[in-house]
Amino acid sequence: MNRKGILIVVSGFSGAGKGTVMKGLLGKYDNYALSISATTRAPREGEQHGREYFFLSREEFEKMIAKDELIEYAKYVENYYGTPKAYVEEQLNAGKDVILEIEIQGALKVKEKFPETLLLFVTPPDAKTLRERLIGRGTETPEVIDMRMKRAAEEAEGMEQYDYLMINDDLDTCIEEMHRIIQGEHRKSFRNVPFIERIREELKEV
Amino acid sequence: MNRKGILIVVSGFSGAGKGTVMKGLLGKYDNYALSISATTRAPREGEQHGREYFFLSREEFEKMIAKDELIEYAKYVENYYGTPKAYVEEQLNAGKDVILEIEIQGALKVKEKFPETLLLFVTPPDAKTLRERLIGRGTETPEVIDMRMKRAAEEAEGMEQYDYLMINDDLDTCIEEMHRIIQGEHRKSFRNVPFIERIREELKEV
Repeated sequence: MNRKGILIVVSGFSGAGKGTVMKGLLGKYDNYALSISATTRAPREGEQHGREYFFLSREEFEKMIAKDELIEYAKYVENYYGTPKAYVEEQLNAGKDVILEIEIQGALKVKEKFPETLLLFVTPPDAKTLRERLIGRGTETPEVIDMRMKRAAEEAEGMEQYDYLMINDDLDTCIEEMHRIIQGEHRKSFRNVPFIERIREELKEV
Repeated sequence: MNRKGILIVVSGFSGAGKGTVMKGLLGKYDNYALSISATTRAPREGEQHGREYFFLSREEFEKMIAKDELIEYAKYVENYYGTPKAYVEEQLNAGKDVILEIEIQGALKVKEKFPETLLLFVTPPDAKTLRERLIGRGTETPEVIDMRMKRAAEEAEGMEQYDYLMINDDLDTCIEEMHRIIQGEHRKSFRNVPFIERIREELKEV
């Protein structure tokens, strides 16, 4: 069967609990690798090069663009953000399922370039829960919460472009469902062309 | 989330253990219903109307064709075989995932008519295992075994038209994988349009 890793993009509303789900998934199962993004923005306190991000100079980043060494990249507020190809490919070839945590525009670019990418969208069961979670953080002003809710309404426009919706109601259930869906994907026919070709050859010979 | 049932077609090589997998799946989980085919062939010893098949007269069957009451049908050796629509729809509406056990031509007809159908193909890990299982039955002559192997080679031509390959190496693993894949399918975005529409509306209001 297919043991090459699957490229997975996880997106979701801010406050949907995406980060916690990812942390739970990677803590529970060892067949996943989280892609590390590159950026030209300055590291914040406590951030480490090669852990949160690869912190690059603008020149280094533009060299990577020129050499097609990024799966996708975008520019926000004068800074570049992108996904270096080398690490992802290395992990995929080692059989790891590699997760990119990026927003919808990036997700669709990756899918276009690599059509076998699996797109997962993490969502709370309803908008009320999303607002409650944002309030529950206790770190955001009401204005920021309203802005995030407005942003969620925009992001919701792209939901059906994702393959699966992961409803994060109960955390453990969501982690387990995500794991099962990804593992089930390994059984997709289009991911098992070598198996099909082998058994066809065998059946011709007998 | 989506709780309407999913229509599932299961096909596979004769000798792949499809029947045993189905029996195991239905015995272990109660959210599945097996579709019962209709046929004009005479019942064999021990076969019951409404259990193995609905045994119909040619006239009754042709009336069902005329009234579009069959999901698919075919004629083999002067007899009709088909899938009555009413039972399947009733079970789907009750939230059951309904399994049709039919061969590839029928499978593709169903998919064409109902694009949301999930197509699963049960296969042994290799051709050698298939032959051993056919021999192991102890009921088939070498000629029949050769014929079935030849038929398997033909059927293998359509394998990639199925959504998933279910490798039946270990029976319990295969049953569990099939269950997880079907349950994962309930999370597909296109099966959850009402959820997406609802959360979009909610997000507009807040």
